[in-house]
Amino acid sequence: MTDAISEGVDPMATVDVLLQALPYIERFRGAVVVVKFGGNAMTSPELFDDFAKDIFLMHRVGMRPVVVHGGGPQIGEWLARVGKTSEFVDGRRVTDAETLEIAQMVLIGKVNSQIVTALNAMGPIAVGLSGTDAMMLQAETKDESLGFVGAITKVHPELVQRTLAMDMIPVIATIGVDESGQTYNINADDAATAIAGSLAAEKLIFLSDVPGVLRDVADPSSLIKQLTVESALDLLEDQTIAGGMVPKVLACISSLEEGVGSTHLIDGRIPHVLLLELLTNAGVGTMIRKGDR
Amino acid sequence: MTDAISEGVDPMATVDVLLQALPYIERFRGAVVVVKFGGNAMTSPELFDDFAKDIFLMHRVGMRPVVVHGGGPQIGEWLARVGKTSEFVDGRRVTDAETLEIAQMVLIGKVNSQIVTALNAMGPIAVGLSGTDAMMLQAETKDESLGFVGAITKVHPELVQRTLAMDMIPVIATIGVDESGQTYNINADDAATAIAGSLAAEKLIFLSDVPGVLRDVADPSSLIKQLTVESALDLLEDQTIAGGMVPKVLACISSLEEGVGSTHLIDGRIPHVLLLELLTNAGVGTMIRKGDR
Amino acid sequence: MTDAISEGVDPMATVDVLLQALPYIERFRGAVVVVKFGGNAMTSPELFDDFAKDIFLMHRVGMRPVVVHGGGPQIGEWLARVGKTSEFVDGRRVTDAETLEIAQMVLIGKVNSQIVTALNAMGPIAVGLSGTDAMMLQAETKDESLGFVGAITKVHPELVQRTLAMDMIPVIATIGVDESGQTYNINADDAATAIAGSLAAEKLIFLSDVPGVLRDVADPSSLIKQLTVESALDLLEDQTIAGGMVPKVLACISSLEEGVGSTHLIDGRIPHVLLLELLTNAGVGTMIRKGDR
Amino acid sequence: MTDAISEGVDPMATVDVLLQALPYIERFRGAVVVVKFGGNAMTSPELFDDFAKDIFLMHRVGMRPVVVHGGGPQIGEWLARVGKTSEFVDGRRVTDAETLEIAQMVLIGKVNSQIVTALNAMGPIAVGLSGTDAMMLQAETKDESLGFVGAITKVHPELVQRTLAMDMIPVIATIGVDESGQTYNINADDAATAIAGSLAAEKLIFLSDVPGVLRDVADPSSLIKQLTVESALDLLEDQTIAGGMVPKVLACISSLEEGVGSTHLIDGRIPHVLLLELLTNAGVGTMIRKGDR
Amino acid sequence: MTDAISEGVDPMATVDVLLQALPYIERFRGAVVVVKFGGNAMTSPELFDDFAKDIFLMHRVGMRPVVVHGGGPQIGEWLARVGKTSEFVDGRRVTDAETLEIAQMVLIGKVNSQIVTALNAMGPIAVGLSGTDAMMLQAETKDESLGFVGAITKVHPELVQRTLAMDMIPVIATIGVDESGQTYNINADDAATAIAGSLAAEKLIFLSDVPGVLRDVADPSSLIKQLTVESALDLLEDQTIAGGMVPKVLACISSLEEGVGSTHLIDGRIPHVLLLELLTNAGVGTMIRKGDR
Amino acid sequence: MTDAISEGVDPMATVDVLLQALPYIERFRGAVVVVKFGGNAMTSPELFDDFAKDIFLMHRVGMRPVVVHGGGPQIGEWLARVGKTSEFVDGRRVTDAETLEIAQMVLIGKVNSQIVTALNAMGPIAVGLSGTDAMMLQAETKDESLGFVGAITKVHPELVQRTLAMDMIPVIATIGVDESGQTYNINADDAATAIAGSLAAEKLIFLSDVPGVLRDVADPSSLIKQLTVESALDLLEDQTIAGGMVPKVLACISSLEEGVGSTHLIDGRIPHVLLLELLTNAGVGTMIRKGDR
Repeated sequence: MTDAISEGVDPMATVDVLLQALPYIERFRGAVVVVKFGGNAMTSPELFDDFAKDIFLMHRVGMRPVVVHGGGPQIGEWLARVGKTSEFVDGRRVTDAETLEIAQMVLIGKVNSQIVTALNAMGPIAVGLSGTDAMMLQAETKDESLGFVGAITKVHPELVQRTLAMDMIPVIATIGVDESGQTYNINADDAATAIAGSLAAEKLIFLSDVPGVLRDVADPSSLIKQLTVESALDLLEDQTIAGGMVPKVLACISSLEEGVGSTHLIDGRIPHVLLLELLTNAGVGTMIRKGDR
Repeated sequence: MTDAISEGVDPMATVDVLLQALPYIERFRGAVVVVKFGGNAMTSPELFDDFAKDIFLMHRVGMRPVVVHGGGPQIGEWLARVGKTSEFVDGRRVTDAETLEIAQMVLIGKVNSQIVTALNAMGPIAVGLSGTDAMMLQAETKDESLGFVGAITKVHPELVQRTLAMDMIPVIATIGVDESGQTYNINADDAATAIAGSLAAEKLIFLSDVPGVLRDVADPSSLIKQLTVESALDLLEDQTIAGGMVPKVLACISSLEEGVGSTHLIDGRIPHVLLLELLTNAGVGTMIRKGDR
Repeated sequence: MTDAISEGVDPMATVDVLLQALPYIERFRGAVVVVKFGGNAMTSPELFDDFAKDIFLMHRVGMRPVVVHGGGPQIGEWLARVGKTSEFVDGRRVTDAETLEIAQMVLIGKVNSQIVTALNAMGPIAVGLSGTDAMMLQAETKDESLGFVGAITKVHPELVQRTLAMDMIPVIATIGVDESGQTYNINADDAATAIAGSLAAEKLIFLSDVPGVLRDVADPSSLIKQLTVESALDLLEDQTIAGGMVPKVLACISSLEEGVGSTHLIDGRIPHVLLLELLTNAGVGTMIRKGDR
Repeated sequence: MTDAISEGVDPMATVDVLLQALPYIERFRGAVVVVKFGGNAMTSPELFDDFAKDIFLMHRVGMRPVVVHGGGPQIGEWLARVGKTSEFVDGRRVTDAETLEIAQMVLIGKVNSQIVTALNAMGPIAVGLSGTDAMMLQAETKDESLGFVGAITKVHPELVQRTLAMDMIPVIATIGVDESGQTYNINADDAATAIAGSLAAEKLIFLSDVPGVLRDVADPSSLIKQLTVESALDLLEDQTIAGGMVPKVLACISSLEEGVGSTHLIDGRIPHVLLLELLTNAGVGTMIRKGDR
Repeated sequence: MTDAISEGVDPMATVDVLLQALPYIERFRGAVVVVKFGGNAMTSPELFDDFAKDIFLMHRVGMRPVVVHGGGPQIGEWLARVGKTSEFVDGRRVTDAETLEIAQMVLIGKVNSQIVTALNAMGPIAVGLSGTDAMMLQAETKDESLGFVGAITKVHPELVQRTLAMDMIPVIATIGVDESGQTYNINADDAATAIAGSLAAEKLIFLSDVPGVLRDVADPSSLIKQLTVESALDLLEDQTIAGGMVPKVLACISSLEEGVGSTHLIDGRIPHVLLLELLTNAGVGTMIRKGDR
Repeated sequence: MTDAISEGVDPMATVDVLLQALPYIERFRGAVVVVKFGGNAMTSPELFDDFAKDIFLMHRVGMRPVVVHGGGPQIGEWLARVGKTSEFVDGRRVTDAETLEIAQMVLIGKVNSQIVTALNAMGPIAVGLSGTDAMMLQAETKDESLGFVGAITKVHPELVQRTLAMDMIPVIATIGVDESGQTYNINADDAATAIAGSLAAEKLIFLSDVPGVLRDVADPSSLIKQLTVESALDLLEDQTIAGGMVPKVLACISSLEEGVGSTHLIDGRIPHVLLLELLTNAGVGTMIRKGDR
C-alpha cells in the first residue's frame, strides 16, 4: 500500500500532508521521548527498518528520542545456538555467568549495534550505549535464585543527557553494573522506566505486540485510548488489566510519578506506528497520564 | 484541491509522505536559505499565508530561513493614499524625502510587521529587522537624480547571524543607512543578494511572478530547470534572458561568486512553492549554480 | 549657553567634570534603565537629538538603557494626512483596523526607525524591536468599545534580555499581539511599566512634558523631589496628584511592586535631562521608591 | 614480588616514589595517548586487570588515554563454540556474514564491555564506542576475496574528541561501516593508527606479545630502544624488521606522518607495562619518532 | 633516607606505589584543599622545598590546593633589620603604620613571592594574590589598641574561584583592606578559616610546629587522630586542649560550621607531610570533623 | 583651580563636558592601554591619587588599562633604610641577592600593593600581579657584572589577558623569573614595552618627568607633538633625541614594530595627565606612530 501511494504522489499533496503534521511537530519540539523497543518490531526486518526511519524522522523534526531495548528472542536464539540449556526457578530462567556473557554479547554487540547502524545509515547521529557506560544503570541482584538478573538502584543520566546535548540519539542496551564491576541483565521495561524518570522525559512509549490496554482482552476493538493513573489503578484492581500488561501499566504509573509527562502502550506490529502516534491524529494504542483532578 | 485531500487523509498516507520528504529534510538541515519575498505572494492573502507556513515549516525541519522583502506595491498604494505624486527621471520614480518617509513606514511598519506577526502566530520565532538596525545595510546614494535610493556599500551580517544563532527567523526590511544616519530605500533583490553573500548562504531564492527562466518568454512550457553560470551568461549574451529577468539572473551570478551555494528563481504565484521546491521532487522554477568545469 | 561653554572649555575643567561624574557612573554601572520616551522630546528635533546622545552616553558609561516609545502626535498627524476621521467613545479615540494599520506604520516604521537611526549614527548599537517580535508583548482587547487597543497579558522579555546581552540598546515600539496574530496598539506608559517589571530594571524613567509631581499643579516650584510609595498613595488619596499624573504614578507604584528599583518622572523639555538626572546632582523631577518603613 | 613490596611499604617511601614520577606526569599532562590493546594482555585476567589500572591511573595523572582493541582470540573461541568453520584464502580467514555477526558480538558485546566495566569499577569514566557510532570508522571492502574485512576510508573523530572533552576515556571496538550501513571487521592496528592520526595524538602505543623491535629476533637482549623513521626504513629494507613486526612498524611510520608525536611498540606481557613506560625511566620496548635531520 | 630509596628504586616498585596511591587520588579528585602554610616549614629551606613539591603534586593528581600564608618570623626579622622597635599592649605587638608597611612588604613582596616562584619553577601554575586584590579580604580594626590589626568582615571569593577555574593555584598573603583603602595585617589562621568557609572547601589543613592535638601535651605519643566537633568541645571545656591550640581548634570548628568538609592539624616539621596525610595511610596529625550523632 | 571650578559647576555645563568627551570615549572603547607608571607621579601623594582616578575612569568609560610599574626611588629609600650600600659598575648599581630581595619586597609588597589598594578603594577591580605569576615575564641575566638584573626572553601574556577578560585591571610589578626559579629585577620601561607588544595593545603610554620629546631640551615650548618612526629615527641620528629619552624612544619604536597602535611619552607631573591625553583635545606630550609612507 505504502508503495502504491508513494509512486504516484502529487507534490502538492505532499506539501499538504507536511503542513498537516506541523501542529504535531510543534507540540513535541524539543521533547525527550524515551522509546522502549521490543517485540516483533525488533525481529521483523521490515518493522525494524520502519522503526529506524521513524526514530530518525522524529529527530529531524525536533524531538529528542532515546531508544532503550532488550533482546530476549535474540538471546534465546544464541543460547540455543551454543547449546546452552538454562535452569528454571518457578518458571523463570536463571541467568548464570555463561548466560549473562551471551546476553551481553547479544544485547550490546548485536541488537544495539544493529539499531545504531540502521540509524547511522541515514545520518551520523546514533551512539550505542550500555548501562555499563559511565555506570549509567547502577544495579544489584534482584533475586538470588535468578542469578545475574539485576534491579536498578540508581540511574546516572549524565551520559544520556550529554549525548542528547550533542544532538545525537542514545541507543541503550540494558546491562547494569554494580560498584564491584559485576554486570547484570536488566529487564528492558524497567530500564526504560527508570531512564525516562531520570530524564523527566516528556513521553515514555512502550512498543510491544499488543494493541494497548483492552477492556476485553479477546476483542481488539475494545482498546482504551486514554487512561488516568486513577482509572488505570481501578482497572488493575478489578483485573481488567491482567497478565503481561500489569507490569507495563505499573511501569507507566511509576514513571508518571517520577515526572514523565505521558506514557504510551502501542502496537509495534503496525508499520511506522511511532509516526502514526506522534505526527498524525490516528490515535493508536493507550495513553496513560496523571488525571486532572 | 488541497482541502479535498486533507479532509480524508489516511494517517498511513501521511506517514508515507513524511518519509518521502526525509531525504530533502536531510539535505537542507542547518542550511541558511535566504528568501527574497515579493510579487503577488506578498499581496494575495492566501499566498501570504502559504508563504508564512512554508517558512515556518522550513525552520521546523532544520533549515535556517532568512526573509528579505521589499514592498513596492504597498508603497505605491500609500503614496496614492496620501496624494503624493512622484517625479520621474528616465521613467524611474524619484525618492524624495517624503517618499522615503512613507517607504520606511510601509516597509518596516507594515510589510515587515505583517510577516513577523504571521510567523509568530505559529510560534514565537520571528524577529523583524531593518537594514538600519546595527547598521546592517550600509549604503550610499545610488544615483543623485533618483534621490534617496541607496546602493549597498557593506553588509554587517552579525545581527542576522546572532538572530539565527538564537534559532530565530530574521525578517529584513531593506532600508539602508549611511554613517551620517541618512536612510535610503534599497532594492530588495540587491539587498537579498548582498545579505546571502555576506552569510555565504546555501541557497538564495527569489520569489516573483514568473515561472523562472524561459527559453521562449511567451511559452511557460519552455522553462529551463537548471543553468550553470556559464550557460546563464550565454543566454544573457544572446538575449534569451531579457527584460526584468536580467538583473535577477545577474544577482544570482553575483551571489554565487560570493559563495552562495545555489540560487533559485521560482514562481511565487504557486501555492506553497517554497515547500514544493525544497521538500519534493516537483522541480519548480530555475536553479542557477556554478558549473563543474 | 551650551555652545558658549563648549567652545572655550579648558581641558583641565573637562577632566574635573568627568571625575565628578565618576561616582554616578559607578552607582549605575550595569543597571538596566528603562526609559519611556514621549512628549515634546520626541517632536522637537533638538530635544530628540539630545535624547539620542544621552542614551548613547548612558550606554558608554556602563548602563544598559532600554527605550520604550509611543507616538501619539505622529499617529495623529498621519491620520490627518490620510484624511482619516476617528470615532470617539466617551472622549477616547476608537482604534479601528485602519487606525491600527496607520499606528503600526508610524510607530514601527517611522518613530522607532528614527530613534534607531539616530543612535546608530553614533555607533552600531541600537536594534529596533516591536512588541510583536517573538511575541514580546502578549496582549488582549482592553475595552471592546475602543477597538484594537490592547492590554498586556504577559511580557516575554527574552528577546530584550538577549539584545542587552549582546551589549546593544533595544528600542521598543509598543504594538502588542495575541496568539491569533491580531495586533493591538498598547499605551506606551503601560508597556514601559510592564517591560521594566519583567526585567526587574533598576530604574524606570518617564520622560514627559511636566516637571514631575507638583504639590500645587500651578506652581512649578512646588516640585516634590522624592516620594515613597506610601506618601504617593496619600497624595493620590487627597487628590494632590490628579489628572494625567494619576496613571503615571500608579504605573510607578505597580512597577516598584514588580521589583523595579526606583521610578522617575522627569521633564523631557529640559535639554539632556537624562544625563542631568543620572550623572549630576541636579535632581530634576520626582523619584518614587519603596519606603523604608 | 609486587605484593612483598606493597605490604611493608613505608609511607615516606611512597611519597618519595610519587615525587619521582612527577616529571613524567608533567611531561604527559593533557597528552592524548592512543593505546592499541591486544595479545596476551587481553586474555590473561591478571594482565587485563593491570591494564585497566594503568589506563585509569594515566587518566588520573592528567593524560587522555584512548583505548582501541580487537579481539581475534575471543572471536576464534566463539566461532569454535558455535561450530562455525571458516574458509581460508591464501591462509587468511574469510569473514562471511555469520563470522562478521559473531565478530561484532564478541568485540562490542564482550571485549569492549569487559574493558569498559573494568575501568568503570574504579570510577565512572569509560564509555564504550564502536566504529559504527556516529560513523566514526568509515570503511569499504578491503579485498573482495576476504568478505567483510574493511579498509578505513575516513575517520570521523568528533565523537572521540567529545568523549575526551567530557574528561572520559573512549574504548573503541574496531567495527567499521559504510554509507549503506554495511559493517566490516577492521584490523585493530590499522584502526588505532588511523584514529591516532585523526586525533594528532601525542603518543600511539601498541601493546603486543613481543619485546619491541629486536636487532636479532632470537635475542630479546637485542632490543632497539629508539628508532627514527629513517633508521626504521633502513631496518625494513635490510629485513632486520620482518614478519609480523613489518605492518606494525609501517603503521607507526604512517601515523608519525599524520602528526602523531611518537609511537611505541611495547610488551604487553610485562605487568603494568604502560606505567613502566610512561611514568618511570624503565624504558621498555621500542620508540619510533621522526628524526631530527 | 629518601635519597637512598630513590637512587636504587626498581621501576616496578614505583608502579606498585603509584597504584597504591590511586584510591587516595580518587577520593580527593577535584577537592578544594585550603592549606595554611606556616611555622618551621616556612623557614627551613628543605621543608619549604618539600612543601612546594607537595602542593604541586596535589594539583597534578587532581586536587585544587589554595595556599594561605602569614609570615610572622620574616616580619620580625625585617623589623629588626630596619631597627624598628615595637610597642606592646598586654604582651601583644602593636601594628603601627610603619610596622604595617613592613609587614605588607614582607608578606606580599617576599614570602608570597617565594612560594609563587617555587611553584612556578615546576610549571606555570601559581598566582600570587593578596587580600587586597579585588577586595578579597574585607576587614576592619580588630582592637583599637593594637593598631592596624584587622578582623575579616567579609570574604569576596570570586577571584580565588576564578583562579581555580583557570586550573591555577592561588597563593594568598593575608593583608585585608577596608572600603576606604586602609589595609590591615590579618592573622593567617583566621584568613585561612574564612577563605575555606567562603569556598566551602573539602579540607582545611593547618601546617604548624606541633604534632596535632595531644591528650598529654608533654607526650607526642598521646596524639588524638580523630575528633568530632562535639568531642573537641569537650576537650576544650576540660582544658585538655589549651594554649596556642585553642584558637586553631576553634577555627576548625568554625570552618566546619561554614561547610568545610574536614579540618586537619598537622606537623609541618615532617618532610612531605601533606602528601603523607593525603596520599598514604600514614595518618599524621589530628582530623576534626562534624560528628555523626 | 580645579576646586574652584568643581564647587560652582553648573549641572548643564557638566553634561556638556561629558558629551564633548563622547567622541574620545568612542574612539578608545575596548582598547588595551598599557601605562608605564613612574617618576614623580609615583611619589607625590596628590599625583598618585590623580593617577588612580584616571585609570579607574579609563576603565569605566570602556578602555582596558594595564598598569606596569617599577619603583626605583622607593627601592633606593629602603636600601638606605636598611643601611645597604651598593657596588657600582660603570656607574650602574649592581643588584646583588640582598638588593634583589629588597627590590622585590618594595615593588611587589609596597608599590604594587599601594596602586592596587588605591584602585580598589573606588571599586573592586584591580589585581596585583608580578612577572613571576604564572611565569609572565621570563627572563635571564642581562649583564653578568650587574648581578640579578634581568632581560626579558619571553612574555606569557595569558594571565594578563584573563585578568582583562574578567573586566579587571592588571597592575604589574616588573620582577622576572627564569626556569630555575631565579628572579630578576627588570627595567620597567622594558617590561611595559614587552607586555604591550605581547598584548598588541592599542596604546603604550610612558608617564615620566619630562614633557615629551623636545626639539630643544632646554625649551619646554619646543615639544614635538607627533612623530613617525622614521622621523624619530632621524632625530635619534642627529642627536636631537639624547640622554634618558633615547631608550624610551627606542622602546616606543620597538613596541610599534610588535604591533602596538601608538606610543605616548607624557608628563606625569601634570595632574590627570592621562585623562587630558585620552579624553580631551589638550594634546599633551609626544605621540610616536608608524608613518604612512
